[in-house]
Amino acid sequence: MNAAIRAAVRTADSLNISVYGVWRGFQGLVEQDWRPLTSRNCANILQRGGTILNTARCEAWHLPAVRAKAAQDLRDAGVDALVVIGGDGSFTGAELLNREHGISCAGIPGTIDNDLPGTDRTLGFDTALNTAVQAIDRIRDTASAHERIFLVEVMGRSSGMIAVNTAIACGAEAVLYPESEAQGYDALVTQLKAGWQRGKRSSIVVVAEGDSTGGAYKISERLQSEYNLDLRVVVLGHIQRGGSPTALDRIWGSMWGAEAVKRLAAGETSFYLGSQHGELVTNPFSRIRDPKPNPPKELAALAGILAR
Amino acid sequence: MNAAIRAAVRTADSLNISVYGVWRGFQGLVEQDWRPLTSRNCANILQRGGTILNTARCEAWHLPAVRAKAAQDLRDAGVDALVVIGGDGSFTGAELLNREHGISCAGIPGTIDNDLPGTDRTLGFDTALNTAVQAIDRIRDTASAHERIFLVEVMGRSSGMIAVNTAIACGAEAVLYPESEAQGYDALVTQLKAGWQRGKRSSIVVVAEGDSTGGAYKISERLQSEYNLDLRVVVLGHIQRGGSPTALDRIWGSMWGAEAVKRLAAGETSFYLGSQHGELVTNPFSRIRDPKPNPPKELAALAGILAR
Amino acid sequence: MNAAIRAAVRTADSLNISVYGVWRGFQGLVEQDWRPLTSRNCANILQRGGTILNTARCEAWHLPAVRAKAAQDLRDAGVDALVVIGGDGSFTGAELLNREHGISCAGIPGTIDNDLPGTDRTLGFDTALNTAVQAIDRIRDTASAHERIFLVEVMGRSSGMIAVNTAIACGAEAVLYPESEAQGYDALVTQLKAGWQRGKRSSIVVVAEGDSTGGAYKISERLQSEYNLDLRVVVLGHIQRGGSPTALDRIWGSMWGAEAVKRLAAGETSFYLGSQHGELVTNPFSRIRDPKPNPPKELAALAGILAR
Amino acid sequence: MNAAIRAAVRTADSLNISVYGVWRGFQGLVEQDWRPLTSRNCANILQRGGTILNTARCEAWHLPAVRAKAAQDLRDAGVDALVVIGGDGSFTGAELLNREHGISCAGIPGTIDNDLPGTDRTLGFDTALNTAVQAIDRIRDTASAHERIFLVEVMGRSSGMIAVNTAIACGAEAVLYPESEAQGYDALVTQLKAGWQRGKRSSIVVVAEGDSTGGAYKISERLQSEYNLDLRVVVLGHIQRGGSPTALDRIWGSMWGAEAVKRLAAGETSFYLGSQHGELVTNPFSRIRDPKPNPPKELAALAGILAR
Repeated sequence: MNAAIRAAVRTADSLNISVYGVWRGFQGLVEQDWRPLTSRNCANILQRGGTILNTARCEAWHLPAVRAKAAQDLRDAGVDALVVIGGDGSFTGAELLNREHGISCAGIPGTIDNDLPGTDRTLGFDTALNTAVQAIDRIRDTASAHERIFLVEVMGRSSGMIAVNTAIACGAEAVLYPESEAQGYDALVTQLKAGWQRGKRSSIVVVAEGDSTGGAYKISERLQSEYNLDLRVVVLGHIQRGGSPTALDRIWGSMWGAEAVKRLAAGETSFYLGSQHGELVTNPFSRIRDPKPNPPKELAALAGILAR
Repeated sequence: MNAAIRAAVRTADSLNISVYGVWRGFQGLVEQDWRPLTSRNCANILQRGGTILNTARCEAWHLPAVRAKAAQDLRDAGVDALVVIGGDGSFTGAELLNREHGISCAGIPGTIDNDLPGTDRTLGFDTALNTAVQAIDRIRDTASAHERIFLVEVMGRSSGMIAVNTAIACGAEAVLYPESEAQGYDALVTQLKAGWQRGKRSSIVVVAEGDSTGGAYKISERLQSEYNLDLRVVVLGHIQRGGSPTALDRIWGSMWGAEAVKRLAAGETSFYLGSQHGELVTNPFSRIRDPKPNPPKELAALAGILAR
Repeated sequence: MNAAIRAAVRTADSLNISVYGVWRGFQGLVEQDWRPLTSRNCANILQRGGTILNTARCEAWHLPAVRAKAAQDLRDAGVDALVVIGGDGSFTGAELLNREHGISCAGIPGTIDNDLPGTDRTLGFDTALNTAVQAIDRIRDTASAHERIFLVEVMGRSSGMIAVNTAIACGAEAVLYPESEAQGYDALVTQLKAGWQRGKRSSIVVVAEGDSTGGAYKISERLQSEYNLDLRVVVLGHIQRGGSPTALDRIWGSMWGAEAVKRLAAGETSFYLGSQHGELVTNPFSRIRDPKPNPPKELAALAGILAR
Repeated sequence: MNAAIRAAVRTADSLNISVYGVWRGFQGLVEQDWRPLTSRNCANILQRGGTILNTARCEAWHLPAVRAKAAQDLRDAGVDALVVIGGDGSFTGAELLNREHGISCAGIPGTIDNDLPGTDRTLGFDTALNTAVQAIDRIRDTASAHERIFLVEVMGRSSGMIAVNTAIACGAEAVLYPESEAQGYDALVTQLKAGWQRGKRSSIVVVAEGDSTGGAYKISERLQSEYNLDLRVVVLGHIQRGGSPTALDRIWGSMWGAEAVKRLAAGETSFYLGSQHGELVTNPFSRIRDPKPNPPKELAALAGILAR
């Protein structure tokens, strides 16, 4: 996210537009926790994980009076436009602020799960994917040496995007994720048995946290009780977040941050950015209510073939 | 590349097709340096850099008689089709083998420079990009602490793809690359002076090895003699190659390796794979003679804006 | 461990001694699962995590008859000496084999917890420490951005070595570990409160898995119920194992592997290697029953001071 | 170095001592470029490469009048003691300030080459070593795939410490460094030939920049002209500096930073810290003129044995 902040600030600077940084998202708008951000403030942040502006939930933003007060505060401070980095919650909040109070708003996709409609990538996804893959590479060393099965739970409450991509990239023997129909516990057992018969003595199974079988611990218990297997569970959890972003995340963060400011400066008032077929696109905020994208079925099928 | 090899072998295995691995490219075809590759041989190679099949130049492949002999050897061994991983040279060699002797050939883009027509990505590019960015992040620590200018030379003899993407991703103050017209020595001097006046005390300049000013050492000499600056040069060179591949390179390597075998098995005879607008595509080998893709101009312009 | 295997094989080779690799530890001795290892077999393994020889528990080794049979098998195969990489269990097994059957045995400290008597380092410890620190660096990004407390559980069933060193190296706000007396739940609460009053909005608490308070999840539940804090738990678990070893682990693995073979070749019959005050030393196997080393108290105290 | 700065500031804070940070070393003393450093200022710097205080050469410090002025400035600002992080130049400068003007001075070993008398480690050495090893691991991928010899030049103008340790840790086929007598061009040729005869088709040769044969490029030219070998040269240079420090460097930086302040607060006036046989020690500044430590000969010999 710091790449997007830096790009927005410096692009604004190049257009002689002043920028305030708002700390802790909408909560910072409510509390007027903002201060000027200059090109100098953004030196040496591109390579840092997390966000210099911090982040927080803001229940109060659901109240129309709170939004009205924030809009008035922004106008009083001479603020014409807002750049919001986040997911569907943040974009809905921005949409309301724009529709009710006429503050121009631009959204930049900043959820790690890569499950937003209108864009085939989100900031942090590529970094999280690579972090998960590197962690599982290490787990693979242990799985091979001990001839064990590891169940590795990755992020994704309602999306298998991280799970399926991770599975392909780390050569997992199987993958379980929310949108999958064919898969599930029985298919997993079949796959593990087939691998065992082909001589596989160690396996990595990637499980999305939102999988309907109930997550890695439940699957492990069931497999252990039914088949007496030597299983281990690893929950990657917050280890997938943070860390210095990958090149791709920095490049798209930079492009979106710059584009958001250029479009707001050119008079656009309500949109969020995305990437479609590799091209930078914009979407109306309403698009955020479209169905979430699913991981490509071919990719999930491929994981099965490559695990032999 | 190992991701593509593994995917090709295991996909073939799933279709009951036998696979030979050919060591050291066309040279291995000439010397019949091949042996069976099984799904088991390809265990634990996905995460490794380089290629288990090694690689080599093969001057002899230019001779029609050598190709005819190789084609006969392949037929004698019962080989129907060949998967070639490489760049324009490899694809031209495969095209000849197919046209002259009817051996089915599929190409997988495997050059690090990402400068092949017909595809917007090549295996190794994302890995090389991230390696360069991580190296420059470290150089940035020293540049900041010592308040120095560093000229960092990255790969790219005829293409600025790596240079421009690296520059954006590491927040370089300037970038010089072959296809650029506006840029060059004078523009660089202007940019460095402007940065100095805005209070920048350290700078990173990314230079593609094929840049017309003559590479990082020549620029450094000229800057040092004309402006008496405290400059340092770093040539990344082979440090950008090798290393455990990124998730993206593993995923595309896997998809292309599998697709190459599926299409050959389905009767296609002469094509190379690519990615366009994020979708997997095929191209006729003749397309390799199209003009090389250039780095997007917007990206190079963006580097200048973000360096303030 | 691969560094030690490679060094042992190549040192033996330089002395014209043949080497067999035994797969899966004592289990492989029992099952005669061994085959020749040459200098060539050990190419390109130095940088790999895990062990090419795999590993396994071997309950049968407790039976004298099983050991007698294995000793006879070794003698029948012309084997004079054994190099064992492992911890107290492995060394006790080697001690028995030597005492009962006269097979010369050398031990190399290969437990990740760094809690063996007679050595101030063990193979894998430095790698595990750095892996834990890098993971917590990433968690720190999220902790800072969200202003949260994270409890991070690291390895160490009966030893705080990893916990205390990790805490210093990642700047943890507090550390809980088995040997600590002063520490514990109440001290933790005091420390977190003091930090909060000094303006700390995020904290990392490192917890050894063997800590008497019951591990990170129990502490989290108690803190959450008593203070209503926004806590997160991360269990690093097997993520700390595996991975390409650090320089230090490779260097000591190489030195110990070479030294084990040299000493066996020179006629020593029963010892394990170690490092004391930075020097390579040997210990009699009986020393393994000495008290385990504790993490230095000054280091644990330092963690408290530096967390302000 | 940031670990040492953080530890010094926070330890002082715990003793109710105020701290100024001096920017750019002695140059900052001369220019009074200092400002208060608080525990808060040192949040989130532990994991960062480089130094938040920057660094610079200061020719003027050789002038007695300049040192006298700086001492007076320090006294005027109520400063009693100085912590200096650096190598022999910095320690000599601190020694003069103490002897001539009675300012208490503590030194912390902060050179990357690990070649200071009185200590067996220096801050940055372990990080530089691991960075070099990771870079050469990647180069090894290319060397193997292309069956080539790589000459890799690492830091060390007058010391082979980095070169020899790197060679062991990356499994180099040979190592050339300043203090070596036996080694040199002829020995290198003998080693490369022997490796070739044993079937080695790729080699890594580590060369210290201060080696008497003249560095990697000169050796490469001679080998190429005499033996027509396919050689590549990589100069790691500044890539070895910077980067997030390893656990060991962070731990020793923390211990030394804390100890420097504790000892100054307890009335010690003139010393530099070190590590000997794994224990924290102090040395008088005069010790810096002792002979530099050499890399252990056993280690260099081991590199030769393990390269087979």
